Amino acid sequence: MLNISTDALAYTQHRFAHFVSELKAFIRFPSVSAQSQHNGDIRRCAEWLAGQLQKIGMERVAVFPTGGHPVVYAEHCHEAGKPTVLIYGHYDVQPAEPLIEWRSPPFEPVIRGDDLYGRGASDDKGQLFTHIKALEALLRSGRELPVNVKCLFEGEEEIGSPNLPAFMIANRQSLAADCVVISDSQIPDARQPAITYALRGSINFELELTGQKRELHSGVLGGAIHNPLQALCEMIAQMHDKAGRIAIPGFYNRVRRWDVKERAYMRRVGPSDEKILQDAGAAMGWGERDYSLYERTTIRPAITVTAMQGGYQGGGVKAAIPTHALAKLNFRLVPDQDPQEIDRLFRTYVAKITPPGLWARIRTFAPSRPVMIDRNHPAVMTAARAYRQGFGAAPVFLRNGGTIPVVGLIQEILHLPVVLIGFGLPGDAIHGANEKFHLPNFFHGIETSIRFLTTIGQRQDAGLVRPDNSQPIFITQ
Amino acid sequence: MLNISTDALAYTQHRFAHFVSELKAFIRFPSVSAQSQHNGDIRRCAEWLAGQLQKIGMERVAVFPTGGHPVVYAEHCHEAGKPTVLIYGHYDVQPAEPLIEWRSPPFEPVIRGDDLYGRGASDDKGQLFTHIKALEALLRSGRELPVNVKCLFEGEEEIGSPNLPAFMIANRQSLAADCVVISDSQIPDARQPAITYALRGSINFELELTGQKRELHSGVLGGAIHNPLQALCEMIAQMHDKAGRIAIPGFYNRVRRWDVKERAYMRRVGPSDEKILQDAGAAMGWGERDYSLYERTTIRPAITVTAMQGGYQGGGVKAAIPTHALAKLNFRLVPDQDPQEIDRLFRTYVAKITPPGLWARIRTFAPSRPVMIDRNHPAVMTAARAYRQGFGAAPVFLRNGGTIPVVGLIQEILHLPVVLIGFGLPGDAIHGANEKFHLPNFFHGIETSIRFLTTIGQRQDAGLVRPDNSQPIFITQ
Repeated sequence: MLNISTDALAYTQHRFAHFVSELKAFIRFPSVSAQSQHNGDIRRCAEWLAGQLQKIGMERVAVFPTGGHPVVYAEHCHEAGKPTVLIYGHYDVQPAEPLIEWRSPPFEPVIRGDDLYGRGASDDKGQLFTHIKALEALLRSGRELPVNVKCLFEGEEEIGSPNLPAFMIANRQSLAADCVVISDSQIPDARQPAITYALRGSINFELELTGQKRELHSGVLGGAIHNPLQALCEMIAQMHDKAGRIAIPGFYNRVRRWDVKERAYMRRVGPSDEKILQDAGAAMGWGERDYSLYERTTIRPAITVTAMQGGYQGGGVKAAIPTHALAKLNFRLVPDQDPQEIDRLFRTYVAKITPPGLWARIRTFAPSRPVMIDRNHPAVMTAARAYRQGFGAAPVFLRNGGTIPVVGLIQEILHLPVVLIGFGLPGDAIHGANEKFHLPNFFHGIETSIRFLTTIGQRQDAGLVRPDNSQPIFITQ
Repeated sequence: MLNISTDALAYTQHRFAHFVSELKAFIRFPSVSAQSQHNGDIRRCAEWLAGQLQKIGMERVAVFPTGGHPVVYAEHCHEAGKPTVLIYGHYDVQPAEPLIEWRSPPFEPVIRGDDLYGRGASDDKGQLFTHIKALEALLRSGRELPVNVKCLFEGEEEIGSPNLPAFMIANRQSLAADCVVISDSQIPDARQPAITYALRGSINFELELTGQKRELHSGVLGGAIHNPLQALCEMIAQMHDKAGRIAIPGFYNRVRRWDVKERAYMRRVGPSDEKILQDAGAAMGWGERDYSLYERTTIRPAITVTAMQGGYQGGGVKAAIPTHALAKLNFRLVPDQDPQEIDRLFRTYVAKITPPGLWARIRTFAPSRPVMIDRNHPAVMTAARAYRQGFGAAPVFLRNGGTIPVVGLIQEILHLPVVLIGFGLPGDAIHGANEKFHLPNFFHGIETSIRFLTTIGQRQDAGLVRPDNSQPIFITQ
């Protein structure tokens, strides 16, 4: 099987410049799932992606409609008796605003130095594309794949995958596989690959406070009528105590306390405070005492105020007490917190701290459970070996503070093992302005994917037989 | 002189429907001084207003450019030996946003019931126009005015009159008068006129907090990097203590403590808490204990958060820690607070409570001193008599929580007595959506103005000789 890899790698080397220009074409679609004005762009992006899969020789290529944005599916299953790998990725992207902070337009990808800049370059178009180009290299150089492959690419990851559960439940049989590979995460640096073994969960709230029915003159009535904007500030101030801990009663009840051994392991392999601050471009850290920054972002929960709006949004001064105020809050949860319970605790607390005379309304979005993955699973070990070949260094095992909702869904619905091998870098500015993808990682990622697919095709060990779909295998909450 | 009034009143009665349609034309100009996209509308409005003054027979009509929006001037000074009245008003208006809350478009005035709806209908186009129509009635029915009159109408009142001081200083001689009449305030109800004898001062701040240089993923870094939006909420929460008092150290040092007599007078003539809440359409009051709502809005200072903005302003969820957060604050000041000192105290306090790692920037706008007017001045007494004739009821003397920056400027620069006779109602929703002007007040206001101008032309008492411009006469801080 060695020659399969070798030929595929030669093909990759030869075609790499072309791969980059195809990735640019992928990034040019403003496939922003959160903004309905981009619904047409999302659909066109899905169709373009399906065309790519068709072109490289994948089969049963389809764009499936869902209640929201479509799912792109493809497979190549000719190797009876060999394992099946399901590759997951997402072709939707975060909003690009504020546009003024971009050095070049977000949907006009450009290369500066070794990096390709554009919204979605790293999250997740570039990382998803790495596997497509590995499949192309294998199919074009060998005519057959060394393993059975299914591809599942969704268009709603950035809005919490609202329609994926229904799709998975309806297609459980078609999606059956031995393991799932997802590249939607970061590695510490371009010479240090990493396998993610834990992700935080997430839940989002819109908290809206309403005061009197109409705007009131702040001269005539200022000081005598309560202001929903002031009150909302005071309520948000009550979400944390002075020590940076979340002040919602009961919030930490289910947060797992890790033993000395795990914390020592994290200290050994995880990024230092200095490294995290440097990658973030931040002058100093913040948050819960007694935890390193790596711990604060992985084994401790967090609340981020992601947006706030209230009062007159135009230029100059408008001297009025506003009628409404809105805050958007993004919670990150850790084992063994339960999003539904957090939803209840938050609503109870808000009801308690809302001042009389004002009305609070809460909307909940995209709840997602925290997940963990067994570092010793055979598929994970295979990924580690492929990484070593692709990047020339053994991977470290890291926790990630982000959320990939599909991982929890795969656990609950498909009961499949997941391998998280990322090709992004901490400085990729995912979700921010000037997002980029490091092109050497694109190349090494393709090699890693080729090595992984080739090696896993040869494994016959217990972890890779077709799983019993009735129970979870190794992804545990 | 009685016949002058009688003829002018007959003319008003006869022409009133036409006056209303002219007022509608005035309101149709979206003369929003805070929004630069309306600079052209402001200029056209000023020219239209000058045309009105010309048409009714005023002289030396001019539109004077300033560093910002123009000043409209006119005079009619044929009565040597008689007093001179300077009429001040403003033709600029507050922003109309949010437009969705208007029952009919803000710049397409319509009559519903006895009210004329539109932005600026009450503040201040309708009230200003009352005097123009009184002048028209007097000039058309009698060919001469019973008194010398100068008109000064500015286009920057709603942004704090930034260019009026320079204009007044440059034209001190031309603006010389015996008293100034301003109608830019409210009376308790359509049957109860009121003379304003105190106004709060004002100072506005934009407080901007900046965090790390770029937006950071709230999953990857939430809990480890401080958030300027959260910090801004916490800082705004520290502007008041739990009892509703402002927590800026030294803020109350110069706030005058009024004696039992003045507070008893205020209790007797001022609106009750119930009346204030009813007019505001609010369910309950808020603020400093031990003070009535009328006192809280007149003899006590206030801070209103008028706007806030930060993070992703589009639809849906964007999971990022924002880089900036902005709040707009409107302070109302009372005797003997000094805006410059408050500016210093606020800046010192913000510097103290800004968390490490975040940077605060403060911009100050439109400082204006609180003012008081002598209730016993002859011009004020004359206005009281005119009100009684125009509205059929003796006026009460009230404090107003709002700010009319020009009153302080007239005190400091022109050293002239000011009479504040309002024709607005508490339910006019000035600065809010669905602003309106009560048309019976328009009619009675014109009569009041005719009576005032006629009567004051007959007075020869001490208060009405040309003042010594070197010192203040009766407007004291």
